[in-house]
Amino acid sequence: MRLSTMFVPTRKEDPADAEVVSHQLLVRGGFIRMLARGIYDFLPLGWRSVRKIEQIVREEMDRAGAQEVHLPAVQPAELWQESGRWTQYGAELLRFRDRKGAEFCFGPTHEEVVTDMIRGDVKSYKQLPLNVYQIQTKFRDETRPRFGLMRGREFIMKDAYSFDVDEEGALKSYDVMFEAYHRIFKRLGLEYRAVEADTGNIGGSRSHEFQVLAETGEDEIVSCTECGYAANVEKAEIRLDVAEAGKPGGSELATLRTPKARTIEEVSAYLKRPAELIVKTLVYMADETPLIVLTRGDHQVNELKLKAYLNGELGRDVQELRMAGDAEVEALTKAPVGFAGPVGVEGVEIIADLAVEPMVDFIVGANLKDKHHVNVNHGRDFEVGAFADLRQAGAGDICGRCGGTLEAHRGIEVGHVFFLGDKYSKAMNANVLDENGDHRPMQMGCYGIGVTRILAAVIEQNHDDDGIIFPMAVAPYQVVICPLHLKNELVVSEAERIYSELQAAGVEVILDDRDLRAGNKFKDADLIGIPVRLTLGGRGVENGEAEVKVRHQSENEMIPLSEVVDRIKALTRDARGER
Amino acid sequence: MRLSTMFVPTRKEDPADAEVVSHQLLVRGGFIRMLARGIYDFLPLGWRSVRKIEQIVREEMDRAGAQEVHLPAVQPAELWQESGRWTQYGAELLRFRDRKGAEFCFGPTHEEVVTDMIRGDVKSYKQLPLNVYQIQTKFRDETRPRFGLMRGREFIMKDAYSFDVDEEGALKSYDVMFEAYHRIFKRLGLEYRAVEADTGNIGGSRSHEFQVLAETGEDEIVSCTECGYAANVEKAEIRLDVAEAGKPGGSELATLRTPKARTIEEVSAYLKRPAELIVKTLVYMADETPLIVLTRGDHQVNELKLKAYLNGELGRDVQELRMAGDAEVEALTKAPVGFAGPVGVEGVEIIADLAVEPMVDFIVGANLKDKHHVNVNHGRDFEVGAFADLRQAGAGDICGRCGGTLEAHRGIEVGHVFFLGDKYSKAMNANVLDENGDHRPMQMGCYGIGVTRILAAVIEQNHDDDGIIFPMAVAPYQVVICPLHLKNELVVSEAERIYSELQAAGVEVILDDRDLRAGNKFKDADLIGIPVRLTLGGRGVENGEAEVKVRHQSENEMIPLSEVVDRIKALTRDARGER
Repeated sequence: MRLSTMFVPTRKEDPADAEVVSHQLLVRGGFIRMLARGIYDFLPLGWRSVRKIEQIVREEMDRAGAQEVHLPAVQPAELWQESGRWTQYGAELLRFRDRKGAEFCFGPTHEEVVTDMIRGDVKSYKQLPLNVYQIQTKFRDETRPRFGLMRGREFIMKDAYSFDVDEEGALKSYDVMFEAYHRIFKRLGLEYRAVEADTGNIGGSRSHEFQVLAETGEDEIVSCTECGYAANVEKAEIRLDVAEAGKPGGSELATLRTPKARTIEEVSAYLKRPAELIVKTLVYMADETPLIVLTRGDHQVNELKLKAYLNGELGRDVQELRMAGDAEVEALTKAPVGFAGPVGVEGVEIIADLAVEPMVDFIVGANLKDKHHVNVNHGRDFEVGAFADLRQAGAGDICGRCGGTLEAHRGIEVGHVFFLGDKYSKAMNANVLDENGDHRPMQMGCYGIGVTRILAAVIEQNHDDDGIIFPMAVAPYQVVICPLHLKNELVVSEAERIYSELQAAGVEVILDDRDLRAGNKFKDADLIGIPVRLTLGGRGVENGEAEVKVRHQSENEMIPLSEVVDRIKALTRDARGER
Repeated sequence: MRLSTMFVPTRKEDPADAEVVSHQLLVRGGFIRMLARGIYDFLPLGWRSVRKIEQIVREEMDRAGAQEVHLPAVQPAELWQESGRWTQYGAELLRFRDRKGAEFCFGPTHEEVVTDMIRGDVKSYKQLPLNVYQIQTKFRDETRPRFGLMRGREFIMKDAYSFDVDEEGALKSYDVMFEAYHRIFKRLGLEYRAVEADTGNIGGSRSHEFQVLAETGEDEIVSCTECGYAANVEKAEIRLDVAEAGKPGGSELATLRTPKARTIEEVSAYLKRPAELIVKTLVYMADETPLIVLTRGDHQVNELKLKAYLNGELGRDVQELRMAGDAEVEALTKAPVGFAGPVGVEGVEIIADLAVEPMVDFIVGANLKDKHHVNVNHGRDFEVGAFADLRQAGAGDICGRCGGTLEAHRGIEVGHVFFLGDKYSKAMNANVLDENGDHRPMQMGCYGIGVTRILAAVIEQNHDDDGIIFPMAVAPYQVVICPLHLKNELVVSEAERIYSELQAAGVEVILDDRDLRAGNKFKDADLIGIPVRLTLGGRGVENGEAEVKVRHQSENEMIPLSEVVDRIKALTRDARGER
């Protein structure tokens, strides 16, 4: 298309509210405009990229045997009441009443609607397996929408739902989606990890997140350099470093003054001992029962692991787990907050992270104002009820699967696959007859991809100071032709010839026919991230040459005019589906 | 795709609430399911057809130079307050508050949002013309959603908006869209008319509706068999039949008893005179001023024409025009309702339809209970203030443009093009600098196509007792292969061979691999309206033949197996884009 006729309103200034680079560049490049907090207009360039993402997702979902459907945005309250989520979902669910007063919501997800659709027509295992998907607008009324498309309120998602007669089938459906997701993110040209993830409130028991690696990502993930195991830090399994164990202890316990030293950093600085020699004492309330949790001073408790451990291996049924308040801590330890320790505390269970087990002669709070104990040893000075993997994983930790070393990344979650089991089918009576003639709830999986968020993630991972560096598969156009001297007839006629020939070959090409200086044309081309720029200058064209510049490379190359079209066709071949 | 793995839940019974055939067949064929009143799930077949419609619309919009964007469904109240429609729009506008209490609506249309987007970045005539469009989900909270996809609450629309510096440019943009719409409806394979339409509440002054012709259509339209002029009956211009004029009159007025004969039918029956000899007297209230309107007994007043005439040629400023209530009629005529007439009424304006002008010796109410006057003549017995074209057009009327004859149709409105002028740009300060450096509001047009409604309209126009007869361009699949004897290896292997070869050629093909009888397979194939059915029977295949049946033809044809693929490729060529 000719740039002079296109609606590509680039801007020089970053928007005031843009905290991340994708938000800045999407606004400056004329891809999106804010309509309201967390709600954006997609302008022509932005929408082209979104549609390319959609199309790759669609092709791979189809290839995986999923069938495309389209479910309403406006959903009746009754279905959410059946599943129980009408009350559970909270304020993120945008609720309203229609003109007759009936309650509805703007769907943030479609488990209820799709389960309702399937239960109406699927009655027998012979109709299974089924996997239906849609690419559709969702709304989540976030408290703090921010980061542009990264955390919007209205957004586009691909959501798929599988239905099987039994768990074996459901896990097979899960694996098919897992593989499809790998193909999708590879085709999008992204560096990503599929990480094991917590199943959170949506229920179910198997779950992977697909995380695009980017420094600005909100999620912390670790991956093993050896076996490829990857997980959200909330979930990552780690192993005790055997080298840490086995040191002898047994020095005499002493109590030292540590005035005003409350945090690990303050104690470490005051006593001139590293945090690795301090044991951190945290008081939790598990449904109003206090609980002491110990970790090494430089480690963090992972509350998801802690809760899973309490309800799993310890067989409890804890609903709410929270840090104790100051008053609760002081009631338990008889000392101000910051000086809590495990020695001498009675009537409360103490559990500790695995990394505490080998520690000897360590430091803890003394349960006295401005005092800490040193040379403390568990088993002698106090008893630990159980040791377990309770801490957040981090770089350098040992992989829980293979013993390799974990590295840390930041990631942007762009996809999620979930095995749901019968959570929704049971609540909503979505049953089928199995081979034996018995009624049983279908086994479900759900599989999301944040289509509009991917556009932001692509940019977070692929940009430089000049703008976006689109992977070929997601670029709104593949090529921009910049004729520099619009009064030079040869320049113009060659630009037009190449423009027509590329269009005829199916290349998506912009002709920058605006009467602007080279610098301005290049600035816009770099900003909007078109992968290939072809520049026709007066002198070059008279010498029979034009300049090809690939956005992600620093070098330019002069190419004979007669070869330009073939070269560009070669550079764009994959994106045009010629393989 | 193999039908055994597809989600195509056909049903034998019509849904209880389905009043029109498209609704019945869409549900029975497994295309849609109702989620709530006027809100539907699209199942795989239904969604495929919708996407085909979308794609044709998209290609023609792109070809016409429009640029695709995507605007939010959730729109802030502020913009609707700027345009004034927040209060005007009524209960069809679904309004709600977000978690912070800010007011929003689910967009039923996007004039405000698009005007806001354009005014933010377009400041000069040099950036114009622009035409942006989207294909997107809308919501209108209809009082009485019905007829399935014909009048739903949540639906998909293509809406385009053009922006020009002046009216000349805007009308050019209008014409470009008008031509694009013709291409779209031709490609969809529909019989339709582009009719001149009333501009209603949306404002503006030039407007055409695109109406798909179908007996079940809600709209009445007329078109001229000679010049092609077509219009909604509300708007259609007609001409006086000269043959009607010129008969001599002058018989003496008489008053006859017509007990209980109030309606034209009753008077006509009682006096044994045709309705053509009776003049109907209607009392209207134009903003509380009474007005008598006369038409021939067999004609209907068109209130839109009447209001346009009052405010146009007569230069009034009537806001509300309504039929007078019984009490108002009786106060004016001093007689019970049903006996009103123009003779002897004082202090009220009388206007008449053109068809009344040549009438002589006609019958009117006598303004006396149970009495009518006969042999009445205007100019002698009472005065008519003005004669004008005030009646609804109908079949047999004379074309107002060329003198040809009008024919009547019923239509389903599937598209609408509107010249809006500066209605929104003025209210919302969407100004540009023109060539002289003056600020002026942009001139806008808006252009809608009801994408999901088209699917219903296609079926209303194309069906028989057995089901849908899809035009090739809109069919979810083009071909269904029915192998009849799944235990006959030759049948199965030939079916599989043809299935693969057609898929490789880009033909969209279903293989009905279900173990069902021929009758059941044919029933489903007819119901879902696949254009071409290929049947492989045991005997036929052994003779080297298969049966090709085109859905809209009654004849079958036996074709050598070796020619089947080429024949089907030829039948589906257009739909596959090979021209």
